[in-house]
Amino acid sequence: MKIATFWYDGMRLVGRVSADGTMITQFFLGGRGHEAGALALMERLSAGDCLEQGAPLPLSEVRLDAPLPHPRRNIFCVGKNYRAHAREFARSGFDSSSAKAGDEVPSDPIIFSKVPETVIPSGAPIRIPTGVSEAVDYEAELAVVIGRGGRGIAAGQAMEHVWGYTIINDVTARDWQSRHRQWLLGKSFDTFCPMGPWLVSADELDGTDTRVRSWVNGELRQDGRTSDFIFTIPQLIQTISAGVTLYPGDIIATGTPAGVGIGFDPPRYLKPGDRVRIEIDGLGVLENPVE
Amino acid sequence: MKIATFWYDGMRLVGRVSADGTMITQFFLGGRGHEAGALALMERLSAGDCLEQGAPLPLSEVRLDAPLPHPRRNIFCVGKNYRAHAREFARSGFDSSSAKAGDEVPSDPIIFSKVPETVIPSGAPIRIPTGVSEAVDYEAELAVVIGRGGRGIAAGQAMEHVWGYTIINDVTARDWQSRHRQWLLGKSFDTFCPMGPWLVSADELDGTDTRVRSWVNGELRQDGRTSDFIFTIPQLIQTISAGVTLYPGDIIATGTPAGVGIGFDPPRYLKPGDRVRIEIDGLGVLENPVE
Repeated sequence: MKIATFWYDGMRLVGRVSADGTMITQFFLGGRGHEAGALALMERLSAGDCLEQGAPLPLSEVRLDAPLPHPRRNIFCVGKNYRAHAREFARSGFDSSSAKAGDEVPSDPIIFSKVPETVIPSGAPIRIPTGVSEAVDYEAELAVVIGRGGRGIAAGQAMEHVWGYTIINDVTARDWQSRHRQWLLGKSFDTFCPMGPWLVSADELDGTDTRVRSWVNGELRQDGRTSDFIFTIPQLIQTISAGVTLYPGDIIATGTPAGVGIGFDPPRYLKPGDRVRIEIDGLGVLENPVE
Repeated sequence: MKIATFWYDGMRLVGRVSADGTMITQFFLGGRGHEAGALALMERLSAGDCLEQGAPLPLSEVRLDAPLPHPRRNIFCVGKNYRAHAREFARSGFDSSSAKAGDEVPSDPIIFSKVPETVIPSGAPIRIPTGVSEAVDYEAELAVVIGRGGRGIAAGQAMEHVWGYTIINDVTARDWQSRHRQWLLGKSFDTFCPMGPWLVSADELDGTDTRVRSWVNGELRQDGRTSDFIFTIPQLIQTISAGVTLYPGDIIATGTPAGVGIGFDPPRYLKPGDRVRIEIDGLGVLENPVE
């Protein structure tokens, strides 16, 4: 099942996208249910509610919002979770988490966060914060959306807590990421979290071996598979939930494959006029212009 | 003005604490206004609303909640913002942000976050996550609460954006903080953010030279002054807001003075049965048992 949050006739709505990706059917959630986007639907479905649906609309007649436009807390993000990227990042000189040669590949997951207000939908512009950072980079990532919360979740049960997946571009100001040592600020500038195009329920995707690609202006930059994860999705959920209770709607961005801008020498940062396109097999396309 | 969130007669309410700290007077906020705690009041006061008040109650007859019991996003926290603490932390061997000798004192603010669900009021227990970490430490901190949001706030105007202050205990699992390099997880375990006892408006406190003390089981451990900050409150607001829009109710914990548990050799971690008491002159006392 593909669930999108979308704007139609001045209202934010939630609907099911048809298998061929051409039509969308609104769910009637009532009240303020649509403000939380797809989260409201996830909660209603978990409660076993039967939801009435409207007539299908052509997807071309609506404007997609991010599936979870207002996460209830910061987005959990994983650093250096693909081996080749861990090495390119350490080589770049921007990796404040790698203290010495030989520890480029982390032995434990590196988890940081992005503020929720960074989220923008597919199509909305990533804004370069002129005068603040011109070292802005892209990171294509598979994002896991938690459906059932919990604490102390064992890896063996972790997939029962996953509602589904979406795509995130973990946009990063590399100079801030390096200079401030902890990554929160460099990851949290306004517009730095394109998310979409929609949620895909866990039964439709094998997250253990999924292709993750990104292009800048049509040039393929990243081409990885989640089978290259250093830490698997169940391991990440086990680690995060060991001491932190997870809640429905929590988002975990699982790290990015090699091929980011600082992997090049000299670095190839994003600049106004660029277009970043991310495709994850089975999840669709997230594409954003840069301003 | 001192603003507390409190429970009385089964309801969460917001009220003004008398100057002598013995009485509390409820504000009538209406609707669901009280769920957000003092934030609802801050917003109503900003809008210039005249608020009706109830009859004063003895503070001893109510149960205090954290003034902002459900922050709308993760709490911003500052690492290593007192010189003596920066050195004790580097010496301890737990500081994953210090790569080499000589960089113990940061040249730029280190900003990380804690998830909002860590917040507990004064009096509620800090829970040691048995089997997950036994290296749990206290950190007494002055917390700034933003009243007026903004982006690109210059240091010279920053204090106009501060609504007030409260006390935070930035409880930390030192093993997780070190092992996972980014500090989010080790700072975000359930119950790891005691906050309170209430908010004090900015006009009542000179945050530039305030005494910050903590005791464990009556033994004085930390005794610092905010005049020892490496980065002042206006500098912190300028740095965070350079690329991240700040919103009303955002919380910035400004770092901790020397004297935390890992400053001792061997480290003196918190254990069940301990009591942590934090006092900041002008803000009151935040005291929590450890379970």
